[in-house]
Order: sequence, then C-alpha cells, then structure tokens
Amino acid sequence: MSHNTFGHLFRFTTWGESHGPAIGVVVDGCPPNLDVDPAQIQRQLDRRKPGQSRFTTQRREDDEVKILSGVFEDDRTGGLKTTGTPISMLIDNKDQRSKDYSDIRDKYRPGHADYTYHQKYGIRDYRGGGRTSARETASRVAAGAIARLVIPGVTVRASLVQVGPHKIDYANFDWDQVDRNPLFCADARASEGWASYLDDIRKQGNSVGAVIEVVAEGVPAGWGAPIYGKLSAELASAMMSINAVKGVEIGAGFDAAALTGADNADEMRAGNQGPYFKSNKAGGILGGVSNGDPVVVRLAVKPTSSILTPRETVTTDNRDTEIVTKGRHDPCVGIRAVPVAEAMMACVLADQFLRHRGQTGREGPVGF
Amino acid sequence: MSHNTFGHLFRFTTWGESHGPAIGVVVDGCPPNLDVDPAQIQRQLDRRKPGQSRFTTQRREDDEVKILSGVFEDDRTGGLKTTGTPISMLIDNKDQRSKDYSDIRDKYRPGHADYTYHQKYGIRDYRGGGRTSARETASRVAAGAIARLVIPGVTVRASLVQVGPHKIDYANFDWDQVDRNPLFCADARASEGWASYLDDIRKQGNSVGAVIEVVAEGVPAGWGAPIYGKLSAELASAMMSINAVKGVEIGAGFDAAALTGADNADEMRAGNQGPYFKSNKAGGILGGVSNGDPVVVRLAVKPTSSILTPRETVTTDNRDTEIVTKGRHDPCVGIRAVPVAEAMMACVLADQFLRHRGQTGREGPVGF
Amino acid sequence: MSHNTFGHLFRFTTWGESHGPAIGVVVDGCPPNLDVDPAQIQRQLDRRKPGQSRFTTQRREDDEVKILSGVFEDDRTGGLKTTGTPISMLIDNKDQRSKDYSDIRDKYRPGHADYTYHQKYGIRDYRGGGRTSARETASRVAAGAIARLVIPGVTVRASLVQVGPHKIDYANFDWDQVDRNPLFCADARASEGWASYLDDIRKQGNSVGAVIEVVAEGVPAGWGAPIYGKLSAELASAMMSINAVKGVEIGAGFDAAALTGADNADEMRAGNQGPYFKSNKAGGILGGVSNGDPVVVRLAVKPTSSILTPRETVTTDNRDTEIVTKGRHDPCVGIRAVPVAEAMMACVLADQFLRHRGQTGREGPVGF
Amino acid sequence: MSHNTFGHLFRFTTWGESHGPAIGVVVDGCPPNLDVDPAQIQRQLDRRKPGQSRFTTQRREDDEVKILSGVFEDDRTGGLKTTGTPISMLIDNKDQRSKDYSDIRDKYRPGHADYTYHQKYGIRDYRGGGRTSARETASRVAAGAIARLVIPGVTVRASLVQVGPHKIDYANFDWDQVDRNPLFCADARASEGWASYLDDIRKQGNSVGAVIEVVAEGVPAGWGAPIYGKLSAELASAMMSINAVKGVEIGAGFDAAALTGADNADEMRAGNQGPYFKSNKAGGILGGVSNGDPVVVRLAVKPTSSILTPRETVTTDNRDTEIVTKGRHDPCVGIRAVPVAEAMMACVLADQFLRHRGQTGREGPVGF
Repeated sequence: MSHNTFGHLFRFTTWGESHGPAIGVVVDGCPPNLDVDPAQIQRQLDRRKPGQSRFTTQRREDDEVKILSGVFEDDRTGGLKTTGTPISMLIDNKDQRSKDYSDIRDKYRPGHADYTYHQKYGIRDYRGGGRTSARETASRVAAGAIARLVIPGVTVRASLVQVGPHKIDYANFDWDQVDRNPLFCADARASEGWASYLDDIRKQGNSVGAVIEVVAEGVPAGWGAPIYGKLSAELASAMMSINAVKGVEIGAGFDAAALTGADNADEMRAGNQGPYFKSNKAGGILGGVSNGDPVVVRLAVKPTSSILTPRETVTTDNRDTEIVTKGRHDPCVGIRAVPVAEAMMACVLADQFLRHRGQTGREGPVGF
Repeated sequence: MSHNTFGHLFRFTTWGESHGPAIGVVVDGCPPNLDVDPAQIQRQLDRRKPGQSRFTTQRREDDEVKILSGVFEDDRTGGLKTTGTPISMLIDNKDQRSKDYSDIRDKYRPGHADYTYHQKYGIRDYRGGGRTSARETASRVAAGAIARLVIPGVTVRASLVQVGPHKIDYANFDWDQVDRNPLFCADARASEGWASYLDDIRKQGNSVGAVIEVVAEGVPAGWGAPIYGKLSAELASAMMSINAVKGVEIGAGFDAAALTGADNADEMRAGNQGPYFKSNKAGGILGGVSNGDPVVVRLAVKPTSSILTPRETVTTDNRDTEIVTKGRHDPCVGIRAVPVAEAMMACVLADQFLRHRGQTGREGPVGF
Repeated sequence: MSHNTFGHLFRFTTWGESHGPAIGVVVDGCPPNLDVDPAQIQRQLDRRKPGQSRFTTQRREDDEVKILSGVFEDDRTGGLKTTGTPISMLIDNKDQRSKDYSDIRDKYRPGHADYTYHQKYGIRDYRGGGRTSARETASRVAAGAIARLVIPGVTVRASLVQVGPHKIDYANFDWDQVDRNPLFCADARASEGWASYLDDIRKQGNSVGAVIEVVAEGVPAGWGAPIYGKLSAELASAMMSINAVKGVEIGAGFDAAALTGADNADEMRAGNQGPYFKSNKAGGILGGVSNGDPVVVRLAVKPTSSILTPRETVTTDNRDTEIVTKGRHDPCVGIRAVPVAEAMMACVLADQFLRHRGQTGREGPVGF
Repeated sequence: MSHNTFGHLFRFTTWGESHGPAIGVVVDGCPPNLDVDPAQIQRQLDRRKPGQSRFTTQRREDDEVKILSGVFEDDRTGGLKTTGTPISMLIDNKDQRSKDYSDIRDKYRPGHADYTYHQKYGIRDYRGGGRTSARETASRVAAGAIARLVIPGVTVRASLVQVGPHKIDYANFDWDQVDRNPLFCADARASEGWASYLDDIRKQGNSVGAVIEVVAEGVPAGWGAPIYGKLSAELASAMMSINAVKGVEIGAGFDAAALTGADNADEMRAGNQGPYFKSNKAGGILGGVSNGDPVVVRLAVKPTSSILTPRETVTTDNRDTEIVTKGRHDPCVGIRAVPVAEAMMACVLADQFLRHRGQTGREGPVGF
C-alpha cells in the first residue's frame, strides 16, 4: 500500500502514463490453478473504457489487455490457469494524438495534481496528466478481474447512487439495471433523469460529482486484519486512492453520527445457520472484521476538474492567467469510476481472504 | 499498515488488551536527536484518558506512560533525545476491577466486535472487549506525540463539529476553545448545548454519534506518495482504523458530489511567495499530494454500542437473549476520539514527510 | 524486514537497549488457539542467558520473560492460548551496575558499531553498546519460542560446528549432546577440546570466532516465496541480522563452488511416499522452496570484539588512542548465538508456512 | 522483499517466464530528475546477455530493453529524466524456438526447482524452467542500472574470484581486466587458465560452480537500517535470491570464524578527514551500518544443474528414470551472475541510501 503497490498477500503494482506507449499492472501472490478467461478480464475493461456513451470521454482506446506472464496452459483442457507467479498485464495507449501541450505545460489546471506533482517532483509528464490521469484506473480493473477469481463465492457490484444533487430511490434498486444504462445505475428511472441533467451540464461546459455504492455479497464472517489492517480501513484506503474520490463511508457512514446507540447497533437473532443480524447499519463490518452481512461502501467522487468554462489559475512561473481545459472529458467522472470501485473492493477482499487463510488455516468463520 | 503496525518509515506497532496487565506501543523509524519531553507526551495522554468529565467513561486510569527505550540523555542539557532506535512506551492497566464477565463471555454485544472476533479467531479475550476496546487508542496518542516532534512546523488540531444531529456554527469556530470545554469543541456555544443534550442521552441509557474535524496547518506542498500511498488514502485508512469510525472525508468530501466542476475546483492566483489557492475545497490535497493549504479531514464516529438499554442478541451457542451493557461507558465515544484523530493525522504526516525526504532529498516543495 | 521488524505474516518487532530499563518483543500475526506454556518460552531464554558457564559473559540477568498480551485463559483447561492478537513480551534489565562509561563514551571500540551508529544517528546510547548489544537477541529467542508453536511438526536444532580453527568430526554428531555441554556442540569429544582451547583464549584476553549449523527437520516440500522471498534468501537475511555474523551458507554452501554439476545436483528416486533425494547438497531448498529434506544452514560468527588486549582506536573527536574493553564478555559469542540461530530459523519457517497456506490453501505440498 | 518485489523505498517488481512473450521489471520509488540514458541501461543488459562467449548459453536473445513509463523528456536538453513515477521496462523473449518439452514436462530435473514448484503450486510452466529460469535476472540488471543513477558517488564492481577449485591471485587483481575477458575476472592470468579448464568441463558435458566478489566503493559511513534491515542482512538476502547462489559472506566472512578478536577487529586511526580503519576485515559494515570502507561481499554459485551427463531422477508420477538436459546451457552460471550481483548490490545501496536520507535528513554521516 505504498507508492504504486496495493495489497499484502494479493498485491498489485501499476505503472504507466496517460500518453506514454502503454500502461500496465503486475499482480503478485495470486493463488495457483485458477482458471483464467482473458475474455472475462476484457469484459471488465470494456465496462470502464472511454467512449462507451456520450457521458464519457471520447478518447478512443480499445483497452485491449495482453497477459504477458503468470498463466499457463492446462494440459487437459487447453485453457489458461494461474501458476502462482506474477501476472503481468499490459494495455497499449493508442489514442495519443499529437497535439499542442503548451497550455497544460505552462499552466496549472485547477483541481488537478499539476501543481502538487510539480512541487513534489520538480518535473511532470504534463501530457494528459501523465501518471495522475484516471487512465491508470484501467490497470486496477484488470487486477480486480483477477481478484474476483480468488474469491469466487463473493459477488461484487456497484451502482451510481447520486449524480450532482440527485439521488436514487432505493425502492427502485435493481442490480440487473446497472449494466443496462450508460450510467451504471441500479435505479433505471433515476438514470433517465440523470441523462438529461448531464446533457445540460455538458452543454454548459461544466461537470458534476457523484456518489457510488459498492456492495460485496457472500463475504463470510471473519475476514479483516485488525487493528491497522481492518477491512474497513483498507477499503477506505482503496477507495480514497481512486482519482477524484474525496469521501468514503461504510454502512450507515456519516449518518451514524446522528443516530443513537439504540438505533445504530444491529441487533442479533439466532438462526438455523447461526446468528444473524436484524439490520445492516454496520455495512457488514464490526471491529474491522466482516460479520457475514453484505459489505457496503459508498464513495464520493468530485466533479471533473477539466471543464470548458474558463478558470483562474497561474502559470508555472507564477503569473496570473486563465485556463480552459479543452479536449475529451467526462462530464461526470463518477460514472466510469463504478467498475473501478468494484475492482478495488475485489482486490481488498482477495487480499484479506488470503491473509485470513494464512493466519487461521480457515477460509471463513469457525461457524456453529 | 498490516495487522497491528501502522506506517512505513515512521511506523508504530501497538499491543495489549483492555484488561490485561498493560498496553503499549513501539515507535520505529523516528529520526534521531529530537528533544523528548515526557511531560508533553503525558499531556496528550491526559486529554484522552477516561474520567475527565461526566461525558466520558468513569473507568479510573492514570494512563501514565513509561518510556522504555529509544531515548538517551543529552550530554550537554541532561534532557532526553531520540536515538533513532525503537521507542517503546508502556501504559499499565490499573482499573481492572475483578468482576463478573459471564454476561459478555456468553453473549455477543450488538455493535461490538465480539461476534466477528469469535468467528475469526475462535477465541476472544472478552474482558472489556479485549483487544477491540478503545483503550488501544491510548497507544496511538503516545505514538502521535512522538510524531509531532518529527514535524515541528505542522500544527495538528481537531474539534468535535457534530454531536448527534447537532452541528457547530463555523462562524463561532475558535481553536482556543477546544481545550476549554470537556467536549473538545471549537464552538463554545454549541458545546454548551451539547452538554445538556448529552446529559439527557446518558440519563436515557443511550448514546450518540459524532463528527470530528481534524486540521493540519503548515504542511508544505509536496507530501504524499502516489498512487496507492496517497496522503488522502492513508488519512482515510488511519481514521477508519479508529474504533467506531464509519466515514472519512477530505475537504468538501461528500458535499463535493453535489457540486459542479466550476464550483469545486479551487482557483489559483499568483502570490508573492508563489501561487496560492482562492479556496480550499480540496482539503489541502490534490492527486494525493499536499498543496500547501491546511489538510482538512472529517470522520464520522458511530454512537457507543454499549448502552444501558436492553438489546436483542444471541448467546455464543446461538440462542436468543437480551443484553444490557452495564459498566462505565462514554455516552459519546466521539469525544475522546478527538485527540486520537489528531494523533493519527500526526503519524500519517510524519511518515509521509520522511518518505518525501527520502525520495526527493527535500523537506518540502521545489518552490518558486 | 525493515528496521526493527522481521517477517511478513508472522512478524515480530524488538526494542530496547542493553542498559535501559528493559528489552522486549511484540509478535504479531500468530495463529490463534495455540497452547502457550510460559515455562517453555523461559527454557529457551535460559539457554541463551548469560552466566551459564565460564565461557559466557558473567553479566547477571535472570532474563525472566513476562507475557503482557495476546494470550488468554482457555475456559476448559485454564491453560493459556494465543488469541491471534499481538503477543508482547518484556524482559527486565537487572544487572545495570552503575559504572564509569567515560571510556566507551569517548572512544570507538574497534569491531563494534560505535563509530557507525554515531555517524548514522549523531547520537548513541554507549552504555554496553545500547541497541547494538547482543542483549537484543534475547527478544529473538522469545519470538522464536512462539514461532515453534506455529510449526509443531518441525524440529529446529543447532550446534556449534567450529570454534576458531577447530571443526567437529561429523562422525560423532549426536543432537542429544548439544544441551549436555556448555558449548552447544553435537560432538561431545570436540566440545572437550574446545573447552580447554577457550580457557587459553580467555586467559590471553582474546576471543575467537565460530561456525554454527542450524537444521530444521520436518519441513514439508513447498514452503518458500519466490523470487525475492525465497526461503534461502530470508534465512540468509535472518542469520546475517544476528550480531557478529559475517557469513551464511545453505547446504553445500561455499563448497558447492568447487563441485561439478554431476557431483552437486542431488539425484532423485521414487519412494513409496513420493520421490526422495539421494543426497542433500541443496540443504533442503531448490529454487528458494523447501524440497522436504532437512533445511541446513551454517553461519559464521566473528570473534568477540570486546577483548582485554589493548587495541588502537580513536576518540570521538578524532585523536589517536588505545582501548581495553574491560567487563564481562564472552570469549566466543558464537556459543550463545546457537539458540538465537535456532530462533531465527523457527521464525522464518513460521512466516513462510503462513504465507504458503495463505496463497495455496494447503499446509504442505500437493503430494502424490 | 516478499514474493517478486525487492526493496523498500527504492523497490522493484519483476515478472515473466523463460519462454513467455516477454519479461520485465517495474522500478518504483526512484528519485525524480535523474538523467536516464537508455544506452547505458542496455550496456548493462548486454554484459549479462547470453551468447557473448563460448562459456555461456547459446540461446539467442537481443535482450533489448524498452522503457515504457516513468521517464520524460527534459524540456531543455531533450534527454530523458526520471519523473518519480514507476519505471516499467520490458524485454521481449525472442528465441523461444518451438521444441519438444515432453522430457522436462514429465521429469524433474535434479538441482532445479521443478519438483519444488510442482509441490508448492501444483502447476508449473516447464518450458525452460518458466519463472525459475535465470532469465529472470535480466530484469534485475535493468533495475540495477537505474539504481546506479540514484547513487552516482558509488562505484559497484564485481569479479569472478573462483571457478571450480581454482581461485584468483589477489596480487594480480585489476578491475580494468574484468570487462576484457569473457569470464569477468579481475585476474587476467587466472582467467586464461580457467578458460581451458572450462573448455574441458564443457566437453565432459559437465559444469562447475564459482565464487563472485562484489565491491562497492564510495559508500559513505551511515547507510544501513538496523536491526532487521541491516545493510549486511539485506545484501545477504539480495545475493541469496540470485539463481544458484548457496552462500554469502561479508568481509572476512567464514574465515572470521578462525580468527581471534585481536586479528579480526579493524583498528582505527585519526586521519585528516576523520577516523579511518587500518584494515577491512569488516567488509565495510559494522553493526549493519556502512563504515565508509569498501563494502565487500562474496557469493558462492553452485554449478549449472542442467548438464549433458545422464542423471537419476523420477517422473512426475513418481517412477524412476534418467534425464539428460539437452540444450543451450552455461558450463558455469557463475559467469553471467557477475553483472547480476553488481545489480543487486546497487539496488540494496540505493534503497538504503533513500531510507537513511528519509530518517536522518542527511545523505551520509554526521562527519567531523
């Protein structure tokens, strides 16, 4: 979890800049003998890739992933299997159209990391934001596709639940809707309203923020590594590391602040398979360890900082100026962050699963 | 950041259970030759220690910290200095009054980690919650007091900004008030209202949640280790690892979701000392790297789960029952979490500072 | 494996100086529900403790270990069990007789870390070598005693196999002899000769080096984490981290350089339980992974640097001088390093075991 | 230092199999603004690449390295500079001639990791040894070339000092000879004798081991991270992680065991620039921290296990058989391990340098 590596036993390292020759990821610590279907990995990448609808950037990228290592043909089936060695995946950057970078070379774009990277490193690859571009998140999605193989009993899904000030109606919540609308929204009706709202925003040369809800079902009780490796703490770190994310909450989250203890603590009852909880204010995590209920995380994504509206800023030699960030930008980066948030959830869970199995010798709880 | 260790170059490991003989922390990687004043460390612990007011648990603990290693007398001044070797600090548990633990031994307390620890480990020290007790946070405060020595130019302060549904009025915000009221609240007037509100809550045998705001001033631009070691990601992890925390946000946080790009991205102007930001929606962090503005983090603390109101739960052999958690509990654990949140902020910053210095050879930004 | 922490899943952190109030260790990541017998831990510490014979320092220390956390009484048996939380162990320093430290404060002792610690940190606790004292190794032995509980099927033993220029005769090798002579030597006859040799050395105010052989039997095939976490690489790191160690070899070790491929590569035969090796030049490790044969490591320990013979050195303000290191020193530090080397072997194996179990879900090999 | 990642602040992750499409490395944590000359990196790779002489494998590989990220054109000079972000380097595998793998698929090669990888993972890429092939070391050499940029004041060189039973004469030692003979030997005369000796060995279908000496000059006093991150411990781990290495020693190494304290501890004298050591038995390291003298490490490389002489082994279904490893093998893998050992030394030092600078704020010692 330092620099460009995430995770402990199941860990991945990403590399690459927005306008370099390629980006990629090395997944290490993956269990051996898992069946790998490259088409399945590609499908996840396709969900995140640009140009899928008018609500995302029109940059043209196939985002075709190549697996360079860590898999081997199964002698019997001819299919690919993980070998336990590092899985290197590479995605070429294709749409690096030659253009004039002088504006973003000489000015700091408000809301971007231009200024902070320059101050930290004294040098920055300004082409398309370089390393700070959300293009990096394609690598996370590839890693997440591998992570899902590690925890086949777990279903990880996400939905946009707020766009700008507009929230979904949870009464309409239906996971099947998520991949049926371009906004990854489980509330089909909300999705329609958001579409016209986003058209307006885009026409204004503006952008808006969003909230994403990620849910993992099938997580057994017992995953999580207290105290500083709490499942909740690592989810917070995972989600906050995604570009433009400014807030993370688990279960009742910030609303829990306004609740009383009697209203907040989920009561328990005896079930046939062992105890169960009458509610899930906890978001599936108690004391940093999963309790068997769905793990529920929400993240706040700020509005795209690159907008067509002129903004006050300074030049790299500290003179007042204005900037208009032309180009192909998402009116709401929160949309494409949905598969990214799923990927990070899957990676955190895969890692916690392996660590739990390592320490205890069990895959789940002691049970009843 | 795994198990019971937090941090990379500046790192600490905590140990100990609520009702064991002692708790403690080992701080490793501290720079040498820093002046250590044990009274200053004790002062931080005293702020967190129980029994300071009627709003916190009446458990009686001196929380007297003993420094066992890593410091040495300065030949000239006779004062203590860090030597660069591990600083071990120990706090005895004094108020372990012998009592009947059968209730919490045989039942799972709702909202607590009893059930999850049992399912994870198959064994748990049930006395006072064992390792999951918020008593562990005393160790963090000790570590944080050392961290402050590492970043003397940075001021880390926190305030309660919401108790239950009641928020402060930022117009009244005054850091000097924080240590003048028992609720660590920068709004003196709000604090008074909260006091009577909390008295009611306590009399009802109930509890409430809270929101804390932590601010670090004097952080130079350039601290933060992208991508997965972003300053924001590590703050999220640090805060979410604190007992009862269910949400973390940076700067505008969840409110950013409802903003447009034009409203959210902080514009810049040329100043005499270099560029400055006209606002701080970013909470001092862009692209995971500090931008020179105050670093602003808010965390949501759920209400104390141990309440005098009877709650439905199950026995450890899965039979329905009820539980009333008697004993000495905080009506609002958010109060004592204020110095803990400060400590975690200081630890994250100290670690990021050392890593930045290691990679770049500079203590701050390249400058202008 | 950075700073004062060793290991990944099974990891420990040590702290403390030779003449501070205490030293100690925090063991993290230990599996839960292991039976802990404090007397067994103490027995390991007693083997390493000073003053056991005329061949080791006469410093008087009980080395009584206190377990402060991470264990809990088993409800049925009343015995102690690990809980999966950090096990903190503390050993008081008792024999800190007040003395005149001016000589070692103002001069650098040749062969010691006085000069390098001073140059690194700009400050050093010179009393008895401070953090660089071999006293630190008591903490490792305590950690190793816990590690043995994690791998009950593995027997870890060590023997002195060379003292000064004198080697054992492997024809006489008998593990049962190791704890029957004060030199931890499996060759009883060699041990007798060494005793009189060491008496001479001590009377001369001199010291000698030694070689230790550590053997782990019962390690199943499959433990080890290639490429940079190879079992061999971690054993090398573990042994080289012990005070005064200057060389480590596995199996045939340096002798392998002089062998041909035909002589060195262990041939295999089919056995009833699966393949076996006809020889063990590999020392039980191939490609960084255990092969089922005994894991064999040898380490070279340099002679004690503190001797009564006057030595040329410099003062801390860079003037030529001489030093005679008076006090209570081991004529051969290699002797007391025997239980320390065992402890490090046990810790490496416990950690690799948990990591192997985490990644593969198996405790050992796939088998036949 | 776990799995496929090496290092802490300066760290690299390697990936790739012998007969997959490519191998590669991601270097993370590199300081920004270092001048990168791709030709210089290529030069290091060319030294290690196969087919350079009749003493190394005739596999045909260009080993052309492509830099995919982490560098950016300097606006002024047009040259490349590091940006502080991950440097991804890729080397295509070209000579993967289609062949019959059935022999190595169905039999375990003695001295190789075939059996242990199979037992660990239950699956292995048997083509050319897959991940366990020494081909992986090309990635280390690329990382080492970057590491050298981080520590420009340090000169890292290595020489073969023993081949089979034949050692060099240190009286003839001349660093300039190393790149003038195909055996990387600083003793030109020894090199000639070895050449004919190796011709004989190769004609016999056999192989031999070797010893390499690596020396780093210009390392200032103060680098090293005690206790478990000692410079010596990390060098031991680094060298032991190289394919076929079975022993590592620092300075006097195993010979120190036979020395007395009076002979072993390097005496000190006052010099104009501060103290100096009269000898270097310590190999430049005391207490795990560099002392300003050359850092001297020797490593023992076992003979190539792949030989043309028939060897007894078993099939993967545990039946007795024989194997002759045909193909293109080095008669002495020690030769090509010379640039690899240099690379690992450079990587360890670069990492320790950054960690020292991080903790202390200095690049070297406190000085006089």
